[in-house]
Amino acid sequence: MSPDPARRSERSRQAILTATRELLFEVGYPKLTIEAIAARAGVGKQTIYRWWPSKGAVMFDSLLPAPAGAPELALPDTGDVEADLKTVLRAIAEEFETPYLDQMTRALATEVHNDPTLGEEMVKRLLMPHLEATKERLRSAQAAGQLAAGLDLQAAVEMLFAPLFYRWMLRIGPLTPEYADTVATMAVAAMRPH
Amino acid sequence: MSPDPARRSERSRQAILTATRELLFEVGYPKLTIEAIAARAGVGKQTIYRWWPSKGAVMFDSLLPAPAGAPELALPDTGDVEADLKTVLRAIAEEFETPYLDQMTRALATEVHNDPTLGEEMVKRLLMPHLEATKERLRSAQAAGQLAAGLDLQAAVEMLFAPLFYRWMLRIGPLTPEYADTVATMAVAAMRPH
Repeated sequence: MSPDPARRSERSRQAILTATRELLFEVGYPKLTIEAIAARAGVGKQTIYRWWPSKGAVMFDSLLPAPAGAPELALPDTGDVEADLKTVLRAIAEEFETPYLDQMTRALATEVHNDPTLGEEMVKRLLMPHLEATKERLRSAQAAGQLAAGLDLQAAVEMLFAPLFYRWMLRIGPLTPEYADTVATMAVAAMRPH
Repeated sequence: MSPDPARRSERSRQAILTATRELLFEVGYPKLTIEAIAARAGVGKQTIYRWWPSKGAVMFDSLLPAPAGAPELALPDTGDVEADLKTVLRAIAEEFETPYLDQMTRALATEVHNDPTLGEEMVKRLLMPHLEATKERLRSAQAAGQLAAGLDLQAAVEMLFAPLFYRWMLRIGPLTPEYADTVATMAVAAMRPH
């Protein structure tokens, strides 16, 4: 039993985040309750509400990668931008097809609807770092002369990721590796020097 | 007072759909209730539940264009495929920026999450006819030699519409006419003959 309140506090916080991740996996977001998180983490409900306003907010923090701006966000750089983007889009397609991650991401997307403030925070902290890392890779391909110099980089990264999100979100079709490749090939064709 | 039950039934059905559209506009989807629809339409709640299992299902039917496969789905064809797609994407961007339609479309998208069966039906009846009409326009551009003959048309139409949906859904940025133009130009560049 540590006598240091700050350390005890941090231990409770981590226990709550771990309990949230475990319960998300076991029962899914719709059945997740603050009561269950509190019981699993061995804290009172009021401890959770002291730090987070809603179950969406706890879920969000429980899913954040530990250190912001972690180096593993960087895209592969083999010198072939189309091949590297195929690798990235195939990995995303595989994540969307994983039932656990599918459910989690749908829960997150629903929160964006219901709570614009949380949604904005989520996009800023979860999505934007990936878009920025992708822009970095596109810049390196521009420097290598593989992509047009005058490219609108923001529109370009949205064009890369949007089709997978759209197909998954609206359940238009399966997210196969072949579909990921087609998207990468078409998006890169749109970015080549004319 | 018509003595014909089929006609009376159809009149009730239309009154319910009209009441639903009016209330969607007045109070928004989250505050829409079956009770309010029944009161406005002058029918009992059980009449609504006889035809629709949920408020999502009534909303969905209330938004369907009257006759399926209406000719106004066809895209403009001025002979310049890039210009025509800009016209279409600008119109969609404007719809997304209209508060009433924004709210409605978010409500629809939430239903796709919560009810996969309704979601599938919605995509099949509301979205697919637009994607098919767009493929028709791309085929005419292929015939004119403006687009590659071997194009994956399904992937192509998804690449056209996905970026607007993604940017809007995740509130990444504003859907300006300039953004719509950029998306159309990039997507068409991806579809040109190599």
